Amino acid sequence: MNRPEQPGHLMPIPDMQSQRDERHLAIDQVGIRSIKVPLQFADHDGVAQPTIAMASVVVALAEDRKGTHMSRLVMLLEERMAPGAPPLTVAGMRALLDDLVVRLDAPGGRLELAFPFFVRKIAPVSGIASLLDYDVRLAGELTAGRYSVTVTVAVPVTSLCPCSKEVSDYGAHNQRSNITIAVRPKVSVHVHDLLRIAEEEASCELYGILKRADEKYVTERAYDNPRFVEDVVRGVAGRLAADARFDGFAVEAENFESIHNHSAYARIARGM
Amino acid sequence: MNRPEQPGHLMPIPDMQSQRDERHLAIDQVGIRSIKVPLQFADHDGVAQPTIAMASVVVALAEDRKGTHMSRLVMLLEERMAPGAPPLTVAGMRALLDDLVVRLDAPGGRLELAFPFFVRKIAPVSGIASLLDYDVRLAGELTAGRYSVTVTVAVPVTSLCPCSKEVSDYGAHNQRSNITIAVRPKVSVHVHDLLRIAEEEASCELYGILKRADEKYVTERAYDNPRFVEDVVRGVAGRLAADARFDGFAVEAENFESIHNHSAYARIARGM
Amino acid sequence: MNRPEQPGHLMPIPDMQSQRDERHLAIDQVGIRSIKVPLQFADHDGVAQPTIAMASVVVALAEDRKGTHMSRLVMLLEERMAPGAPPLTVAGMRALLDDLVVRLDAPGGRLELAFPFFVRKIAPVSGIASLLDYDVRLAGELTAGRYSVTVTVAVPVTSLCPCSKEVSDYGAHNQRSNITIAVRPKVSVHVHDLLRIAEEEASCELYGILKRADEKYVTERAYDNPRFVEDVVRGVAGRLAADARFDGFAVEAENFESIHNHSAYARIARGM
Amino acid sequence: MNRPEQPGHLMPIPDMQSQRDERHLAIDQVGIRSIKVPLQFADHDGVAQPTIAMASVVVALAEDRKGTHMSRLVMLLEERMAPGAPPLTVAGMRALLDDLVVRLDAPGGRLELAFPFFVRKIAPVSGIASLLDYDVRLAGELTAGRYSVTVTVAVPVTSLCPCSKEVSDYGAHNQRSNITIAVRPKVSVHVHDLLRIAEEEASCELYGILKRADEKYVTERAYDNPRFVEDVVRGVAGRLAADARFDGFAVEAENFESIHNHSAYARIARGM
Repeated sequence: MNRPEQPGHLMPIPDMQSQRDERHLAIDQVGIRSIKVPLQFADHDGVAQPTIAMASVVVALAEDRKGTHMSRLVMLLEERMAPGAPPLTVAGMRALLDDLVVRLDAPGGRLELAFPFFVRKIAPVSGIASLLDYDVRLAGELTAGRYSVTVTVAVPVTSLCPCSKEVSDYGAHNQRSNITIAVRPKVSVHVHDLLRIAEEEASCELYGILKRADEKYVTERAYDNPRFVEDVVRGVAGRLAADARFDGFAVEAENFESIHNHSAYARIARGM
Repeated sequence: MNRPEQPGHLMPIPDMQSQRDERHLAIDQVGIRSIKVPLQFADHDGVAQPTIAMASVVVALAEDRKGTHMSRLVMLLEERMAPGAPPLTVAGMRALLDDLVVRLDAPGGRLELAFPFFVRKIAPVSGIASLLDYDVRLAGELTAGRYSVTVTVAVPVTSLCPCSKEVSDYGAHNQRSNITIAVRPKVSVHVHDLLRIAEEEASCELYGILKRADEKYVTERAYDNPRFVEDVVRGVAGRLAADARFDGFAVEAENFESIHNHSAYARIARGM
Repeated sequence: MNRPEQPGHLMPIPDMQSQRDERHLAIDQVGIRSIKVPLQFADHDGVAQPTIAMASVVVALAEDRKGTHMSRLVMLLEERMAPGAPPLTVAGMRALLDDLVVRLDAPGGRLELAFPFFVRKIAPVSGIASLLDYDVRLAGELTAGRYSVTVTVAVPVTSLCPCSKEVSDYGAHNQRSNITIAVRPKVSVHVHDLLRIAEEEASCELYGILKRADEKYVTERAYDNPRFVEDVVRGVAGRLAADARFDGFAVEAENFESIHNHSAYARIARGM
Repeated sequence: MNRPEQPGHLMPIPDMQSQRDERHLAIDQVGIRSIKVPLQFADHDGVAQPTIAMASVVVALAEDRKGTHMSRLVMLLEERMAPGAPPLTVAGMRALLDDLVVRLDAPGGRLELAFPFFVRKIAPVSGIASLLDYDVRLAGELTAGRYSVTVTVAVPVTSLCPCSKEVSDYGAHNQRSNITIAVRPKVSVHVHDLLRIAEEEASCELYGILKRADEKYVTERAYDNPRFVEDVVRGVAGRLAADARFDGFAVEAENFESIHNHSAYARIARGM
């Protein structure tokens, strides 16, 4: 495309967003959402993992300001997540928020990144390695100089029903479940640690590749570890509550029941 | 809202869609999609069931016509699915298509309705009744006077893995699965018949409410009827192939594996 | 299906959910979610409108109880939303919650219903009637005898960008937007009132059917009423804040920008 | 509870999938779907772009074979898309398919990868660079030695309604639209070429970052280039039909109408 003649070289283009607003209503959040961005994320092993995030970036807006400058929000993502930039870490969310409120001259801001994160897992008997994907969400907030971050992981697992096992002469219904853990860490925390807590409290964890000997193992392990959805959230909550790294947490479990067309669900939150 | 002064009382508003197009390219389908409409649907028992359909209505457009009249397509849905209108049946799709091509003066047309359909089921031991929802899609097509309809049902069921049962000392992984059956009926067919075929070929069918005695029953029944995804599509395909009511069919099964974070999938199609 | 021989006629089937739990962790919410149910809903005109809800029903669980009885939650939905039952209203959520905590002998409970709701609208010039669908969510909560309900509506509208209009010699980019209003009413409130507030604060409201004279009207009306996403939430928030019927509210606007592949977004909440 | 009879604790673990099936029904497709995999994809510039694909891998199964070996399908993805592996190209799909049918000893196979693809675009006036994301799908098929590949791109654009412009004294409704192009290339083709064809036939293309001078430009450009959904598919189809690189194509356009809560839609397919 040929660029059109430069407009506005005689008259400046008006900047409506910088005008005054007279309605005396501050806005809690204004910005952009549902924007996809490439991202390099590094967790416990320090290795930069390329992924794709769905991002939301918003700022608070004082009552006398008509609007925010949306393009600056996209520019922040462009610059901080460019191929050359250092990989993002949970700890690195703070610097993004500091940058955000300065660029937008805003009393507060919020940045949320949701992305798939892969872990190479080892099948329990054959030892074959394969990737498993988890959904991770980082949400940082800076309000009046006070910073907080919430790290959320969604962990797919196997759950096996204790009641079905108990009442049946053989077999027990089981299914894929989702365990969601959200934490407010005092110190920095690794996504990988949260994944492990969820997997250890399930009837069994999942793998990308399982050979027949592995399939025997995970089948029997799930049967040996039946868990109600209530057991799963209590198991995870007990561990998070006893962990000094967290100011608050919420744990949810959703079983995509194999005997119903609906889910069983439970939730425990403390300090969130 | 006050109505504005009537426009166009001196000059007619131009009708661009009726103008000629000179690019000599007929359009296969043009119309509306992703429109929600209330619907009354009647199946095997003749009872009108209120539901909500996501609709798509399109017509073919000759090469010399610039555009179609979108508002007439919405009007067709409004009139034929109004509260007073007789309930839609599979057989009734034909009349909708005839109406469509006449109203739009079109060489052909296509109407698709996707909606949840509820069946009251009886728990196998306790006898307690509860509803189960199924996704149904009716797609009718009329081209050059030739009419066809495709009826598609998505049936949630339990599948239990034969390999897991065989190799394990106890237990067997199982999960919710989706069996999708699409048929081109020669004569009219009931959605309910297709649901039953899918449910009978699964390891076990689902229910909204199960008491403990029922849970024992469905657990053991699934264990007694292990089915690979391959077995499910072969079981359904064998029955559909032998059924003189159908010109063609496609059957798919997707197991939301309880030991993986991905699905197992199989498909057999004949004459589609 | 033939019913199997009645099990448990010699020995009772064990009831694991009623056993004691020794982990001393109360559960905030446990129950079912993602269950589809047919629903009759009545709003300002008192007319029962059939629709389909996605439901979630949970109760709080004391620390000494091992589990809840999931089937009772489904049974509540079955009985209260059966074809013969009176239509649900916003005010009627209270009785459902009372019933819930009694049936489950629970210290608290929560019921959420999300469903499409249709309004017959009149095109602004031609006067042609057509339906428009809105997403409604009712969430009732009863904790320690204290009841609250949140009514949420998502209203699709047109937004036209003031900046684009101001800087351009002609035209202005516009797009479909979603305005979401959530309120905590002190007294009962009608969904329809909330829809109207959102529509009146947009650049223009939407219709299912528009003839050419109507299209001229809505095009010019949107051009005459440009609104930033900030303007929309301030316009709605100003009205809700001044309305004595509400204890608290949250308003969000999301513009599916026609010039970007992301959304502009704003939010104001008070007392939520 | 009685455990079922112990299988095979002294004997090797049975391989059920390799057993014979006696139902005489070949299976068109059997394998895995909905599996997320990291992927490096290279297009016209030869640069490996990291992305994340949703994959489906299936094979045909002869009528005498009971089942396929699902874990081998995951292994193929693991090995061919490992960090060290050369980036995937459209041309490289062929080698993946050859590998697939050999590993599974199958009469045919199909591999589908759907992933976001980013292009750095230059704002039309300010010259500022920003990324835009597009959805790409590669589907390769090998049946009885005959190979074909389908490349599909979904391109978000602006569409401005010619009728609205014509009938209105000022303004014109416009919205985000999706143009989907699927082609069967004779020779290898670049995704980037297909994106450009779609963008050039829209009222205007999209950008991640637009400054005010750019916003003026895209607003006026869209107003100067009104296109019905019919115009868009005819514009794209005319170009694809005249392009010797393609054996067949399908083009769809969906306008997320800013004046309705539904979409306008059109489709032209030739040789697909």
